Amino acid sequence: MCELLGMSANVPTDICFSFAGLVPRGGGTAPHADGWGITFYEGRGCRAFHDPTPSAQSEIARFLIGHPIRSQVVISHIRRANRGGVALENTHPFTRELWGRAWTFAHNGQLRGVKRWPLGVHHPIGTTDSEHAFCWMLEQLRARWPAPPSDASLAAHVAALARQLAALGVFNMLMSDGRQLFCFCGTKLAWITRRAPFGPATLVDEDLTADFSKQTGPGDIVSVVATRPLTRDETWTTMHPGSFVVFRRGVAHPGVRVVGRGMPAPAGASA
Amino acid sequence: MCELLGMSANVPTDICFSFAGLVPRGGGTAPHADGWGITFYEGRGCRAFHDPTPSAQSEIARFLIGHPIRSQVVISHIRRANRGGVALENTHPFTRELWGRAWTFAHNGQLRGVKRWPLGVHHPIGTTDSEHAFCWMLEQLRARWPAPPSDASLAAHVAALARQLAALGVFNMLMSDGRQLFCFCGTKLAWITRRAPFGPATLVDEDLTADFSKQTGPGDIVSVVATRPLTRDETWTTMHPGSFVVFRRGVAHPGVRVVGRGMPAPAGASA
Repeated sequence: MCELLGMSANVPTDICFSFAGLVPRGGGTAPHADGWGITFYEGRGCRAFHDPTPSAQSEIARFLIGHPIRSQVVISHIRRANRGGVALENTHPFTRELWGRAWTFAHNGQLRGVKRWPLGVHHPIGTTDSEHAFCWMLEQLRARWPAPPSDASLAAHVAALARQLAALGVFNMLMSDGRQLFCFCGTKLAWITRRAPFGPATLVDEDLTADFSKQTGPGDIVSVVATRPLTRDETWTTMHPGSFVVFRRGVAHPGVRVVGRGMPAPAGASA
Repeated sequence: MCELLGMSANVPTDICFSFAGLVPRGGGTAPHADGWGITFYEGRGCRAFHDPTPSAQSEIARFLIGHPIRSQVVISHIRRANRGGVALENTHPFTRELWGRAWTFAHNGQLRGVKRWPLGVHHPIGTTDSEHAFCWMLEQLRARWPAPPSDASLAAHVAALARQLAALGVFNMLMSDGRQLFCFCGTKLAWITRRAPFGPATLVDEDLTADFSKQTGPGDIVSVVATRPLTRDETWTTMHPGSFVVFRRGVAHPGVRVVGRGMPAPAGASA
């Protein structure tokens, strides 16, 4: 199983702390040693860093931890290959353009038979079932709407497409168009929203504590999504298999069904 | 005028030396201080690094010079904004997928009225005329061929499209589908092919000499394309305005008209 990490915030926020908690899982504390990637949205643009080597040994990963990129939406993925060889073109997150927006997609799981699902104008560059599923989803959106619909309509349709894909196997997904962060839990996904008053948090995998109150403003709202909780002293919301949540500017969109919610976080902040 | 840099090689080659010669031109020895980017192809995949800050002060640029990525095709661009604000989404090279291939595009110049040219399935994310031109070119290719044609047919059509665009203003272009490096000279572009016996070369902008014979095999062929020659002790081929050249695995494709060819390089190698 791969590891996913996502962030949505209402102000440009650096994800160094959470990323530092994820990176050891790529060949260090966990066996996801088949490459990693991270995409940062900044305004309408986004930039991605990909490395087919284990994140725990990656010099690019180390560089990013030391050089914060402030972003409002982030998607990261650490890979344990099961479909598609270890190669740059099979390294998540994948990116495509639709409606003049940059779309980003990362997945863990397997989707049996998805490669027989017909595609349209977007085609995989690599050989993963994940990239095929991404191209299929974009084609469904493109065929339905020639121009982007409302955020709410888009989120509802993405949720419906995710459910169709989940019927093929295991489908934990993070996807974004730069405005919304769409999260589907097939088997395992958890999230937390941090807002004032911000406090300290300690990573599960590393002996590292951040005091978010020093880096944040009183109006900041930052949500983090991950395969497993990244901190040991905050309460994360565990998503129920089959559930979907969408974040806009750090906030979980009301009306989206979330099952298995834990206690509210006692404190938190930044990412 | 922006600065372009491209490489095509028959073996994975690092471009650190040439890139080190380009980087000072972004806010250091020349006024192209509005961001920079570089895309490396590795197999079918590619990875890009973009930074909207001046390359001469960029920590990512410094990191890349110290951490070689070996690639068979590279495209890099240092920007001096003239259309579109300084922002990540306006930072070249641009990337799109067509026929399951990752396409990369970088341009210097201005194209008056290009934004009125109709597009198809690809749309700009930013506001540059360059990205519009790229989307227009891809649509012409997609509309003509549902699946990729031969390399030679593709190169011929790319050259024809480039000539159409060049009629709108200034169009110096590097583009690649990961197999071929397409180069169109509107006003200024030069290239060099290095092969055995490799020798030393010294950068124009930096007091740096590389001895390529230490890093290369006897069968290596590496071509470098740039707005202006990057080295002071090699003979570069200056392209004639309106000319086109395509490189495959380091070799300028025979049959492509190149005017203004200088003397053959006395020595050279790697990049």
